[in-house]
Amino acid sequence: MRILVTNDDGIMAPGLLALRRALMELGDVTVVAPTTPQSAVGHAITLTDPVRVHRVSLGDGTVGWAVEGSPADCVKMALYELMPERPDLVASGINLGANVGINVLYSGTVAAAIEAAFIGLPAMSVSIEPAETVDFDGAARIARRLIDQTIARDPSRPALLNVNVPDLSKGPPKGVKVVPQSLKGWRESWERRTHPRGGTYYWMVGEMRTEEEGAETDVAALADRYVTVTPLRFDLTDHGRLDDVRGWGLRLD
Amino acid sequence: MRILVTNDDGIMAPGLLALRRALMELGDVTVVAPTTPQSAVGHAITLTDPVRVHRVSLGDGTVGWAVEGSPADCVKMALYELMPERPDLVASGINLGANVGINVLYSGTVAAAIEAAFIGLPAMSVSIEPAETVDFDGAARIARRLIDQTIARDPSRPALLNVNVPDLSKGPPKGVKVVPQSLKGWRESWERRTHPRGGTYYWMVGEMRTEEEGAETDVAALADRYVTVTPLRFDLTDHGRLDDVRGWGLRLD
Repeated sequence: MRILVTNDDGIMAPGLLALRRALMELGDVTVVAPTTPQSAVGHAITLTDPVRVHRVSLGDGTVGWAVEGSPADCVKMALYELMPERPDLVASGINLGANVGINVLYSGTVAAAIEAAFIGLPAMSVSIEPAETVDFDGAARIARRLIDQTIARDPSRPALLNVNVPDLSKGPPKGVKVVPQSLKGWRESWERRTHPRGGTYYWMVGEMRTEEEGAETDVAALADRYVTVTPLRFDLTDHGRLDDVRGWGLRLD
Repeated sequence: MRILVTNDDGIMAPGLLALRRALMELGDVTVVAPTTPQSAVGHAITLTDPVRVHRVSLGDGTVGWAVEGSPADCVKMALYELMPERPDLVASGINLGANVGINVLYSGTVAAAIEAAFIGLPAMSVSIEPAETVDFDGAARIARRLIDQTIARDPSRPALLNVNVPDLSKGPPKGVKVVPQSLKGWRESWERRTHPRGGTYYWMVGEMRTEEEGAETDVAALADRYVTVTPLRFDLTDHGRLDDVRGWGLRLD
């Protein structure tokens, strides 16, 4: 099996190496990741700037590719330029920080998986909650275990799965829950500060809204210490509303 | 009516002013747009850098706000910091270049509208095909006409509409078509070049795949010279697959 591993935390991120290590047991792993951290870049691609690629030694001595671009750029670069053959799977992560709720829209980690799925490949994004000591290897082993169980399923419909792992330093997860993305937003605002040399700047501050008890979402299940699995789609059309809007009889005159 | 106008082509873009002009007839318009062009940034937000905001004179002498950030940052800055009251509508555009097919995923113009919708506001993204002479005012008048017909509909379910306008220099559009996003990707590759001082860099090159005749998608309808309207959603869960994946019995042990 040929596996492409990428991320949005950048080529130096420990989560990337942990994922690479865990997936080496499944086949040939190619690492193609952004040169610099790209958190919250969403599904950015680099259209108007040149993109440079560097062959680099990773922290564990193996070779990888650093791309001066976004996670989605990395997937395109791997597929169309760097990998001699199409991978059988694209894995993105292990991201430091959960990608649940609205974060799914902002996440470069998830965007890399969506990019791969759009091209027709099975893909999984994997993120773990922040902690004082983050167990990336534990999260990578969970990813590997889930890949074992998903890759063989229905090859005519490649899986696009978003996986989130709770803080493992608090003990093992309670299990796996397959749940939808929460549609609650952040409780957010801008924190206004004054620069030492004058002038105002802002920091975005926000925290995920907690779900009501019993809600079956990624936010709720992760808070309850389950590994969450959410099947994603990249068709943004609101199909349920097409006929509704057609009935509006929109006109230009 | 209070209207927020933003874009991803930046505060200096002519399409922004055209949209502002056309929507002034509907109410109070506040312009908050990125300092620099942000095409294809997708749903990026600025979490790890400070964000600065500048009060600026626009090309037509009115006042606007330039935000050193992404289109989604602009929406958050407008709502939580700059506008004393919530807007009744967020309009994003007029983008130079169609946002149909996979471009819907990459587009900062669309991401701004999605951000607004996630917060619960009616939102519309508007884009026009490139041309030698781009009729932004014509596209803005079309946007205004569509807003007239959509805003009043079902306030309990705020509309999130992605609108694309064909090249108007070739004559008026044939009409309006309500169509889903095409799921065809680009035919894409990397063009490899050598820098004058040595070293390799790449340009992303790609063109939208054309649809089969008769296909009812945004790509096909726009090519057929219709104004396209696509209702979007921001729930990325593949709900049709939740039960399927639940049936896989995923386990950690």
